[in-house]
Amino acid sequence: MELSEDELIEAIRRVVADDHPGVVLGIGDDAAVVAPGVGETVLTTDMLVEGIHFERASISARDLGAKAIVVNVSDVAAMAASPRYALVSLALPPEVDAAWVVDLAGGMRAACDEHAMALVGGDTNRAPVVTISVTVVGEVPPGRAVRRSGARVGDAIVVTGELGGAAGGLALARAAPALAAGALSEPWGRALAEALARPVARVGEARTLAQAGATAMMDLSDGLAKDLGRLCRASGVGARIELARVPVAAALREGADALGVDALALALGGGEDYELLATLPPEAVEPARAALAERFGVPLAEIGRIVEGPGLVAVDAEGRGSPLEPLGWDHFARGS
Amino acid sequence: MELSEDELIEAIRRVVADDHPGVVLGIGDDAAVVAPGVGETVLTTDMLVEGIHFERASISARDLGAKAIVVNVSDVAAMAASPRYALVSLALPPEVDAAWVVDLAGGMRAACDEHAMALVGGDTNRAPVVTISVTVVGEVPPGRAVRRSGARVGDAIVVTGELGGAAGGLALARAAPALAAGALSEPWGRALAEALARPVARVGEARTLAQAGATAMMDLSDGLAKDLGRLCRASGVGARIELARVPVAAALREGADALGVDALALALGGGEDYELLATLPPEAVEPARAALAERFGVPLAEIGRIVEGPGLVAVDAEGRGSPLEPLGWDHFARGS
Repeated sequence: MELSEDELIEAIRRVVADDHPGVVLGIGDDAAVVAPGVGETVLTTDMLVEGIHFERASISARDLGAKAIVVNVSDVAAMAASPRYALVSLALPPEVDAAWVVDLAGGMRAACDEHAMALVGGDTNRAPVVTISVTVVGEVPPGRAVRRSGARVGDAIVVTGELGGAAGGLALARAAPALAAGALSEPWGRALAEALARPVARVGEARTLAQAGATAMMDLSDGLAKDLGRLCRASGVGARIELARVPVAAALREGADALGVDALALALGGGEDYELLATLPPEAVEPARAALAERFGVPLAEIGRIVEGPGLVAVDAEGRGSPLEPLGWDHFARGS
Repeated sequence: MELSEDELIEAIRRVVADDHPGVVLGIGDDAAVVAPGVGETVLTTDMLVEGIHFERASISARDLGAKAIVVNVSDVAAMAASPRYALVSLALPPEVDAAWVVDLAGGMRAACDEHAMALVGGDTNRAPVVTISVTVVGEVPPGRAVRRSGARVGDAIVVTGELGGAAGGLALARAAPALAAGALSEPWGRALAEALARPVARVGEARTLAQAGATAMMDLSDGLAKDLGRLCRASGVGARIELARVPVAAALREGADALGVDALALALGGGEDYELLATLPPEAVEPARAALAERFGVPLAEIGRIVEGPGLVAVDAEGRGSPLEPLGWDHFARGS
């Protein structure tokens, strides 16, 4: 079923159209118009490219659409801001059919609904591979955005949730078919696949950490080692983390042997977990942990301390320190 | 020269970094933060894909970077809004070198400077072909955005500038090498190539048309016939245009025979001129024309009238009417 650009936009519009407070003019004109916010405006954009960030055979259109929104919401969340509006530029190869695109739009709509966001505009194009570029506009009270650059020597380093699940899901997706099928019959296999396909943006959690006094914050998209290095460079500090405290995903621990991977290495170096990495004054950790557990049921792990920089040191169970290598997931290195 | 993602972002940041009023936090964190606007916020996104919208051999990196910004500014302009901030998602094949990317960023910076905009964020990725997705955030006084949907029966239909130049440039780019080389030795050939490579966004012109009383407005990205059809559908009206009044680009008239193209057909159906299409009460046309000529030196052509819909009628020099076919440039049709 071959759709023209106008027909495709109309099909997408039917899926995403919404009466949303703040939207003055939605999809269909040269640009969208939204009401002015009272806070500062937060802007982020992130692109997913077939063959680099996903394989069409390995993720449903609905999950892909939701993920394209969520990874951007996660960036807004990491500033301690609230997402408001999304725009989507979509490029599709000729063989993609209308039903797939409608499912993709349905996933975007569901992810927007979950965060009370409106999808207000977009663009559709042809391309050799599916390419989805999303921009999310958010809002934060003036002066309250939490940057990467505020970490201070002595701060505690914390992460939400569990790490390495998405990297485990990627290992599973790349495993031999028989191994993958076996894994997917187990709860741990399904949990890893889910971690990769359905990441969660920690919007409320980030605001809670900000209220608890977070001095720096970012989301973990490229792996703890790499992203912590970025936070430390931005803050002009170093970090010392205790490997035994890194919250390796339970499903990854359980499946690591079957998948032939090192669970701790994936938790340190794997990307796409979209958990929050933050620094806090040490005395703020316990109140933050209690608030996250109570409000969201999400664990907070204290994994180390900010120290004089530069450099990241990983301390093992025997107390031996060694440089924490940036094993992270570079979109560039991976695709080349 | 192989750059990591962080090195590439740093190279781009050096080119585009700017102290811009309104920017609280620019490139380098999870998201950018900008000061709240006083007006309504205008949001648009547009993607350029290699092989669909451009060939890397046919446009310089600098022109491509500027064009990626300008086509989005044009959409903001078409709402009678002012552009403020840009975000760029960039996907690059491995063979693209750092110098090309720095030139691309330089073109983006120049285009942003021209419109007093700040480039505040972005994302870099790998992809099989160069893919540039830009989002522009603009501002408009509350209630003053000019939509596509406001055209009324009896309104005059006007277009700024000249039409078909970009389509002529595309014909030239696709011509046999000897023909193209000959054309580029002529002023008309260079003018057509320039029209395609260096479009201009009509920001001030759009605000002038809005002040003059424009009832509907859009930019001409996909060709007059197609875009006028969209404006009329959005407004629930029809249109009657006089072909003799369509402002065919002078360089296209001059080069049409050499290129073997029909100048009027390209002016009606060719895309990427980024001129403004607007409707005005008839008595507002002369004041608008005078203001555009005085402030910008840009001509305004009255090409017809809004009539009861649906349907677009083209009237030839002998007064014969026939349906104006949507010969426009569908990004979908072209790429498939």
